[in-house]
Amino acid sequence: MSRLQPRDVTFMRSALDIAMRGRGYVEPNPLVGAVVVKDNRIVGEGYHAKFGEAHAEVAALNDCREKGVDTAGLTMYVNLEPCSHHGKQPPCVDAVIKSGIKRVVVAMEDPFEEVSGSGIEKLVSAGIEVTVGVCEAAAMKLNEGFVKRVTTGLPWVMCKWAQTLDGKTATMTGDSKWISCDRSREIVARIRSRVDGVMVGVRTVEHDDPALTARNVHVKRVAKRVVIDPHLRIPLKSQLLHDDGPEVIIAASEVVVKKEAERVKDIEGHGAIIVPMGVRECGHLDLHGFMRYLVSEHQMTNILCEGGAYLTGTLFEEELVDQVLTFIAPRVAGDHDALSAVNGNNLHHICDTHQLLLDNVKQIGEDVLIDYRVIHPNDEDHRRVS
Amino acid sequence: MSRLQPRDVTFMRSALDIAMRGRGYVEPNPLVGAVVVKDNRIVGEGYHAKFGEAHAEVAALNDCREKGVDTAGLTMYVNLEPCSHHGKQPPCVDAVIKSGIKRVVVAMEDPFEEVSGSGIEKLVSAGIEVTVGVCEAAAMKLNEGFVKRVTTGLPWVMCKWAQTLDGKTATMTGDSKWISCDRSREIVARIRSRVDGVMVGVRTVEHDDPALTARNVHVKRVAKRVVIDPHLRIPLKSQLLHDDGPEVIIAASEVVVKKEAERVKDIEGHGAIIVPMGVRECGHLDLHGFMRYLVSEHQMTNILCEGGAYLTGTLFEEELVDQVLTFIAPRVAGDHDALSAVNGNNLHHICDTHQLLLDNVKQIGEDVLIDYRVIHPNDEDHRRVS
Repeated sequence: MSRLQPRDVTFMRSALDIAMRGRGYVEPNPLVGAVVVKDNRIVGEGYHAKFGEAHAEVAALNDCREKGVDTAGLTMYVNLEPCSHHGKQPPCVDAVIKSGIKRVVVAMEDPFEEVSGSGIEKLVSAGIEVTVGVCEAAAMKLNEGFVKRVTTGLPWVMCKWAQTLDGKTATMTGDSKWISCDRSREIVARIRSRVDGVMVGVRTVEHDDPALTARNVHVKRVAKRVVIDPHLRIPLKSQLLHDDGPEVIIAASEVVVKKEAERVKDIEGHGAIIVPMGVRECGHLDLHGFMRYLVSEHQMTNILCEGGAYLTGTLFEEELVDQVLTFIAPRVAGDHDALSAVNGNNLHHICDTHQLLLDNVKQIGEDVLIDYRVIHPNDEDHRRVS
Repeated sequence: MSRLQPRDVTFMRSALDIAMRGRGYVEPNPLVGAVVVKDNRIVGEGYHAKFGEAHAEVAALNDCREKGVDTAGLTMYVNLEPCSHHGKQPPCVDAVIKSGIKRVVVAMEDPFEEVSGSGIEKLVSAGIEVTVGVCEAAAMKLNEGFVKRVTTGLPWVMCKWAQTLDGKTATMTGDSKWISCDRSREIVARIRSRVDGVMVGVRTVEHDDPALTARNVHVKRVAKRVVIDPHLRIPLKSQLLHDDGPEVIIAASEVVVKKEAERVKDIEGHGAIIVPMGVRECGHLDLHGFMRYLVSEHQMTNILCEGGAYLTGTLFEEELVDQVLTFIAPRVAGDHDALSAVNGNNLHHICDTHQLLLDNVKQIGEDVLIDYRVIHPNDEDHRRVS
């Protein structure tokens, strides 16, 4: 492996930047960008633009060809180890080797433990100089959802809520319209438009009857709508069961599903999928199992959980939350009985609270958006990624 | 009045910047800075550095004299209308007129309605060119506490609390150590070291037995310690009644004070001042009256209220809060029964929440500090100041 050279970081940042353009289009594939550099200038670039289409390395080489750039002897920067296996596309390493590229700089190895390193090995065997680990942390973060999924089989779960400064999401009467400002709600719509699933608890369906769709924004991928509803309480007149929106997936207790055949039929009659799940000793539905099901059966990488308080609290207790997006409105409720943003087990000590890692703070109109990663105390690997 | 000239804003910003140096030292006077400009360069500067000492204009003129600068024909920038009355110091307008200064640029008029404009008038009468209103909003903000006090007779009240992301300040068992990080607590100590009063509700004294002093920081002024304790429940063994710290002022119901002569004697025996106040129909102590008392009898301009939830809630309901400083720790309590940051009347609608105006967001270590001003719906004047 060769050593870091001047401007390696600069060019890798360019590759990371253009990789982002694929977000929402390429999943369950990772976001990948590549740039080809000649005499310290970028002469070609490409990114994985859509699931099933050309990978970034090939796109960058094509870009060079179109511009009449001879790639022999040049350097390529790519944020993920080039693939060495046949999937929807021929292996990238073959294209890179064929192009005469002399040096490949890679931000991170492929996180699949079984294939990790084999692409790099193939490049090295072909006599290409390879540098690995440039901007590795940024690359891990860019594909945090992908990394989570391929290393654990679980999706990346983002919990989002809008609250008053003092942590309330609704008054005691349930009024919650509107805590956050238009621009904040637009950001939520944009997130909905790029994730694989939008999840809520059944209480939220009962109370707010939400559509959970991405309105008034460009939809990059259509998120399925997921309801956690152990007792199949979802009202049959819910918007979710009547609109012609994306698929609805309902997680319910397998005992309830067995008992309530009639109700299951009614709900399924509206086109929803009911997924029977076991119930754990603590009384929670087996949410780990259900998350794995969403990954394996629905190819989900990113799930946006929009509450309510109990589902968010349970996901925290089950250590299934990876990211928290909180919109803080410039309001004080000043009422303990108003609804808390997160609810669950009673705590005795501050040290028992769920720990977060501050990632970013932004002013969104009159709101403040704080973006956190979640520290899973029992998951060293994940902590490293964050 | 003369018109804005190039670089007026730049020089006024310098005056505002150096005015800040007096914060914590000059109250109940306002913060004032002045610069003298010759040929587009600052040739002298001064600020009001300590209550009772030279005003900014005189300090800036003295600075010129010490540097051998002839002030005749020069321009002075000052963030507040120069005074025209004899107080602890001779009137600044006389010194300015005597100096031969040709033009005076003022950010804002004196907010005292009775004297507002008279200093400017005197300068104009002396043939000096005067421009008023340069950086007025910034000047109003710099002296927001002073403006509040002289226009309303009420102090500037800052409510500060540290909470988990979901708005909890302690677990249901009362554990609150430590929600916020060291750096956040240091900032609180620095605020304590520059305000006139640190206020808490009696529940906080009962539960946390705080000292309410500014530890491990340079103390600019010694804040008196104020406890809102309608029923004189303060434990006689409280630290506040036993340490040799700053004066303790206790607001209590006048009925209770009359009835509990023995208890009053015990508490006063520990050096505390008990202030009997009326009780309003809603059951709250007359906090408006008590705030006016703190202004008139203790010359308070800035009060830091450190909770608990009920006192903060009551201050909000009484529209006595001007500023909110919330430290948000990277933690989720996820327990509705944990203590809320603010508590009071039950709300039915989101539109009934107390409205804030976002002023500033900062990362403080791992915490986020959000600084708000409070919008008082019935106080147009104050809203303008904010």
